[in-house]
Parts: sequence; C-alpha cells; structure tokens
Amino acid sequence: MIDPIQYSREHKQTNLAELTDFLRIPSVSTQPSHQEDVTTAAKWLIKQMSHCGLENVQLIETKGHPLVYGDWLHAGMDMPTVLIYGHYDVQPAEPLHLWESPPFEPTVRGDHLYARGAADDKGQLYVHIKAVQAFLQSVGKVPVNVKFIIEGEEESGGASLEAFIPKNRDLLSADVALVSDTAIVSRDQPAIVYGLRGMLYTYLDINGPGRDLHSGSFGGGINNPLNVLGHIIAKLRDEEGHILIPGFYDKVRPLSGTEREILAQFPLNEERWLAESGAPQTWGEPAYSLVERLGARPTLDVHGIIGGYTGAGGKTVLPSKAHAKISMRLVPDQDPKEIARLYRAYIKKITPPSIKVEVTIRDGAPASITDLNIPAMKAASSAYFEIFGQKPVFMREGGSIPVVGQFQRDLGLETVLMGFGLPDDKIHAPNERFYLPNYYRGIETSISFLQAYANLTID
Amino acid sequence: MIDPIQYSREHKQTNLAELTDFLRIPSVSTQPSHQEDVTTAAKWLIKQMSHCGLENVQLIETKGHPLVYGDWLHAGMDMPTVLIYGHYDVQPAEPLHLWESPPFEPTVRGDHLYARGAADDKGQLYVHIKAVQAFLQSVGKVPVNVKFIIEGEEESGGASLEAFIPKNRDLLSADVALVSDTAIVSRDQPAIVYGLRGMLYTYLDINGPGRDLHSGSFGGGINNPLNVLGHIIAKLRDEEGHILIPGFYDKVRPLSGTEREILAQFPLNEERWLAESGAPQTWGEPAYSLVERLGARPTLDVHGIIGGYTGAGGKTVLPSKAHAKISMRLVPDQDPKEIARLYRAYIKKITPPSIKVEVTIRDGAPASITDLNIPAMKAASSAYFEIFGQKPVFMREGGSIPVVGQFQRDLGLETVLMGFGLPDDKIHAPNERFYLPNYYRGIETSISFLQAYANLTID
Repeated sequence: MIDPIQYSREHKQTNLAELTDFLRIPSVSTQPSHQEDVTTAAKWLIKQMSHCGLENVQLIETKGHPLVYGDWLHAGMDMPTVLIYGHYDVQPAEPLHLWESPPFEPTVRGDHLYARGAADDKGQLYVHIKAVQAFLQSVGKVPVNVKFIIEGEEESGGASLEAFIPKNRDLLSADVALVSDTAIVSRDQPAIVYGLRGMLYTYLDINGPGRDLHSGSFGGGINNPLNVLGHIIAKLRDEEGHILIPGFYDKVRPLSGTEREILAQFPLNEERWLAESGAPQTWGEPAYSLVERLGARPTLDVHGIIGGYTGAGGKTVLPSKAHAKISMRLVPDQDPKEIARLYRAYIKKITPPSIKVEVTIRDGAPASITDLNIPAMKAASSAYFEIFGQKPVFMREGGSIPVVGQFQRDLGLETVLMGFGLPDDKIHAPNERFYLPNYYRGIETSISFLQAYANLTID
Repeated sequence: MIDPIQYSREHKQTNLAELTDFLRIPSVSTQPSHQEDVTTAAKWLIKQMSHCGLENVQLIETKGHPLVYGDWLHAGMDMPTVLIYGHYDVQPAEPLHLWESPPFEPTVRGDHLYARGAADDKGQLYVHIKAVQAFLQSVGKVPVNVKFIIEGEEESGGASLEAFIPKNRDLLSADVALVSDTAIVSRDQPAIVYGLRGMLYTYLDINGPGRDLHSGSFGGGINNPLNVLGHIIAKLRDEEGHILIPGFYDKVRPLSGTEREILAQFPLNEERWLAESGAPQTWGEPAYSLVERLGARPTLDVHGIIGGYTGAGGKTVLPSKAHAKISMRLVPDQDPKEIARLYRAYIKKITPPSIKVEVTIRDGAPASITDLNIPAMKAASSAYFEIFGQKPVFMREGGSIPVVGQFQRDLGLETVLMGFGLPDDKIHAPNERFYLPNYYRGIETSISFLQAYANLTID
C-alpha cells in the first residue's frame, strides 16, 4: 500500500489534466453571457468530487449561482471536522487582447499554468479535493472528517452563501475552516494569513444648489458641494492616516508585543513593494511599521469622486451635486454596524447647513483573526514545513474575505488561511497563472495538514 | 427736423425687423457646423452699419472669426470718443427640444422677442447701432465720436480680439468704452455695473501610485490622491469662504464706507435669489453682505473633480490619479499673475511628498472697476433716468468680462457697462428672450447717453 503523498506524486499528470478541464469552463459569475458556464463548472465539480470518493455530493440551488457541497465523515466521532471553502467562479477575463494565450484555453508555459481562475480560486480549491482523493484511493480513509462548501459567487458579492450559512449550521458544523484563496510570500516561503481586515463601504451624495449655477453670479453666496466634500474628506482622515471619526478606535484590539514581533518577522521587501505600487514613497501612521499598517491597522480611503464639470477645458460651474465612494478597512474588534453609526453621525455633525449630504452604507463585514495556538494552525505550520522545507511566516492580510468573518460569527469557526498563490499570479488581471510546482506541493501540504491535524488531536 | 429719439420711436417696426433678421443667422461660434453662419452674421453687420451711416466699416480677418469695425469721427476734435463693444456670436442653442419656438426663428410672444442671442448680445449690441443711426438720419451728426468694435468669439474664448487690441491701440483709442452685455435689476429699474470680478482658472492633477491599486493590499501604506485632494481643497478655502492662500488678500482694495453704502442700496431680493439657486440657504463670509460677497469679494470654487472608480456600485480601488478644476474670482487690485504664483507656491507647500500635484494655470483676467465720478458714468446715469424714469442702481457684477479688464490695461479705458437685459432673459439657456420695451428704451437710452456725454464734456 502506498501513502497519500506518494499517490499524489504518481498522479501529477492526471491532477494537471483535471485542473485544465476545470479552467476551460468560463465560469464568470458577473457576466450574464456566462450564466450557463457557471452551472457547468458546478456540475463538473460534482462529478469530480463524487469520483474522488466524497459523499453526499450535491448541487444546492440558490437565488444566484449554485453551491456545491460534499463530505467524508468516517474518520470517527472523536476526530475533528474540517470545513473546506473555495469558489469555482472567476473574474471576467477582459481586456482579452492583453492575454498571451486565451484565458479559457489553459496553457502551460515554463513552470506556470496560464488561465483565468488558475490561482483564484480553481487551482487552490482543487488542491484539497485532490488531497482527499489521495487519502481515499491510497489508505482508504481520511484521518479527519472533511466537508466541502464551494460557492459560485465569490467574485460577485457572495450573497447566496451568505444567506445559506446561518440557515444550515448543522450541515456546515465543523471544528475549523480551511481556505486556500491567498498568496504566500515567494515560491519557497510559505505564509499563513491569520488575520483579515473587515470592511465598511459607503457612498456620499453631496447636494447643494438645485442646478448647476454660474460661479460668477453665485460664487461667494452659495456653498459649493465640491468644496464641502473636500472639507469632509479632510475631516475623516488626517494627513498621516489617522481616522478622525470620534470613537472609531475604541474597539480596536491593541497589537500585543508578541504580535508585533511576529509581524516584524514578515519578510516584506519594502523597496520592491513600493516599486510595484508605482508611488513616490510609502506613507502612513508613523507609530506603526508598514506591515502593521497594511494588515493590522484600520484605514479610510476615497475610491472615487465625480462632480461638476469634468470634460476637457474649463467651465465656471458651481455644481449642484457630487458623489464620493469611501470605505474603511476594519480590524478586530471593530463592529461594522457600530462604525457605520459613528460614521453617519460624524458626517452629519460636520456637514454645514448650506449643503445636504446623504450617506449610504453599501455593506460591511467584520475583520477576522485566528488564534495562532489552535491545533489546526500548528498542523498547518508543520505541514508547510514538511513540504516546503521552510517554516511559514504569519501575516495579517489587508484585504477582506467576508466569508471568513461569517464563519467566525455564524458557525463559531476559526479559519486557517493556507495559501498556495504567489504575489505575481496576476489574479483579476490578464495572464493570470498558477505556479505549478506549488499546485503539486499544495496537494501534499493539504495531505500533510489533514494528517498532522489528526495527530495533534490524538496526542 | 425731428430729434433722434423721435426718429427712433418712428422706426420701431424697422428696428424690430432688422434685429429679427440678425437673430435669424445662427452664428454659434463654438460649433464647426456654424462656421459660415458666423461670417454671414459679420457681413450682415457690415451692411447694416454702412447703411446706418457709419464709416470705415470693415471686416477684419483673424485666425478665428472676423472682427467688425466701424466709426463716425466727425463730432470734433474737442469732443470725446466712445468705443462701443459687443459680440455678434451666440451660445449653442442645444437642447433644442426645450425651445418653445425654434431658436433661430425669432418669434414675438407678448412683450418678448424669443431667439438665441436676443439678449446676449445681438439685441443689446444693435441698440447702439440704431442710436447712432437715429442721430445721423435725424440731425445729421452724432454729438460725440463713436467707434464700434464687435467680435465673433465672445462665447468661445475671445482670443482674436484679445490679440488684436494691443496691436491696434490707435485704431481703438477712445475716451471711454461702452458695453451693453449685462442685465439690469428689473423692467423699470436700470442698473450700471461698475465693477467686474477677474478670474484665475486652474487645473490640479494629483498623481499617486503608478496604477490603480487594491485598497486592501495597499491601503494604509500608500497615500491616496483623492484623500490628498480633499486636504488640498480644505486648505484652499475655509468653511466660511475665506481663502487661505498666504498673501491672497494683500492687494484686495478694501471696500470704502461710500461703496458699502452704494452696494447696500442694491435691491437684491434675497429670498427670490435663493429660490432661483435651489440651495438650502445662502452662505459666505459673515463680515460681508450677500451683495458684497457676490460682487466685491474674491471667491474660490471647485468646478469639477473626477478620480478613481465612479461607475455604479463600489470598487475598492486606491486610485492612481485625480483631476480637479478650481478657479478664483478676483477683485481689484489683485493681479492674476501674482495670484497664480501664490497659488502655485501654496499648493506645492501643502502637497505631501507621497503625492505629486501638477498645477496648470489655464487663464486669468484682472478684475475691473469704473470710477463712478467720470463724466461718462454721470451721462449714463442721467440717460437711464431720462428714459426709464428711475435712477440706476450701481452694482458690482460677480462674473467676468475679460475684455473690460483688457480695455483698462491695454487702452487705458474705463468702461460703462450699460445693460438692457433682464435677469430672466434665459441667456445661455433655452427660450432666450429680450424684453422688447427695453430694446426700444435701450436705443433711446443710448441716444440720451451720447448726448449727455457730449453736454457734460462741453460744460
């Protein structure tokens, strides 16, 4: 009898061929022309998961794109259950002319597999299906219980899964969640994301005069929505990045000395990072390191403004209205609902009576943080070390994966974010790719994780 | 022998018919499809001016639309010369579907003549040609010397006349300029504009990162051009309208007690004015009255901003760039060039090193102010009183007529702004109109002015 890792090594070709099939399906969830393709991808997964030995495999209809579920629960009642999450939908591939090979004709060049969804998230998701298969086909059992919940709307808001979770707590009950939808530091340096920022996304609509006025005839006597917007923006965040909304920091969990030490070990190449941004210099709260500012501190950014005359040349208009999109990235333990209330009250307070400002809260999601000392985190760490030959670094990711916060809130689950992507995978961009050696190492790491997690439970 | 006023009264029908002919020519200077029409309007003027008895009537070719010149210089060397300015081009008529009668089919409804250009400026300009004609056809001479300079680019920047003036100082030399391109208070309440604000129009281009970044991955570590733009705007003008550029007010001529008394007499119906703006309330520097703020105080307004993601829904972009259009209205004795230098230096000072800001000065024009005690102002006042039966009020207009500042600078001329338009003429909008009784009274007022000016000179 061979062991699961050996099994997976002997099936590299099949594993690549199957991923290639998966990537060939243009499951773009946001584009109506690809509606059927999204369902095709879900059905393809159902077939593969059943074939791999997963049970109760089912397509769950929703108001949007279907969810895919499957499990294998024969590890024993005393063994923990891992809920594995991923998404089978992909970002739009446009602009198509920038792709060196067509986005839905997966192509291997060098060590990379190029296709839309290669890294985000089909490749990373499929890793775990292949790991479970390796166990079932080699030793006939998985050392822990596993459940898969896979959605088709991650790139389009995730509303169906969001609605599904609180109504299906039993189906999804587990001891820990496992998600591979992040990047590691470099080819050989694994990383575990243990914190994600939350989010509060808002719109401001600033209304002044009833119509666009002539700035010569009315300037000085009627307030200007764009000037007021400037003042509002300046009052939301100071020039060093400190947010000025009263009470905003009240619930921010302070960074412990231990955590600052952990983050200080994160090997961020500041020079390369800055070069990638194309900005003249880095910036932010002076009391925090760049790594801390990016992952462990809340931020407030204006994403877009439009108002008044924006065509070529000049026009002396005193504009009637302006629109701005502003979001805040939140950290533990900020509550998006509470921050929304503070934000709304503050905007109201700083808006002069000569202008009307309408605040829209588009959506919010809490930040999440995983305890580094839980067995699953230790198992993930040891698995990475075994397969990559390097201990993982721990990081807090600046972006948001709302489902992780929801797992914590609705299912009481901590999540292990075990990424296999790389920073230069070009996700959401043309020529998305997956570094194939890490696809194979990902399968082995997943195998090693499931085994280590079982062992730590028995110990 | 009849007198000129009697002559003009006997020729009302002809005077209306000719203006109607003039208005039928769609001389839209900004629209390429109307290039020939603009020239047709110039040639039509040439014919009429010659017919009225003006001399040296000529079409002056320029890089843009032609200028029209004509004079009558036989009043005697001891008599003053009046340079009469107007423009024969008109604003675009769009949106056409909002016109109750076609914009270039002049239509009389009630007391109004409806057509594009009726008030701005064909009707107001033609008043003076008809006044000169009334003198020449009745008493055979005009009591003062007159020169007409009429441009076809007022609605499209006025570059040709601007270039022409400094090269033709002799041709245009005069004792005073007379311009009818403004509005009076109401049908029976004439007004003389004795001050116009100047203008400095600028663009700001704010550049941060080299491309749009993900606000989750970069937020907190890279400065945001839109947040910085907010701070810049807030630092340019405080919330009460006071401009914060160091040195900005150094050259502002203080309002004298006399002038504040004059402006206090201006019958602004604040309630109606506010209703017209559609704003929730008036606003501005608390130390000045609304009339003062609108005409005699400098302002700074943001006319347009565009940057980042401005489509439907939200996008978590940390934008690469932003663009803003900002202008200042200037008052005597602010020098646009000096203000441009102060502005540029201040923007540089308040721009953080994490962002690049490019300042473009599009153009500038000085404010102008006419001494209320010069003979031509007294003549204008007495002419209004004679014809309208009401003394004119004096006002400072918030808008800018750059040529007036240029007359002052390049020709040393004070300008009498003798308007016959009304605030509800809908200039630049659909259903532009001219209140016909004031067309006829305008001709009589011009006659009375030329006579009174001559009399005051002889006295």
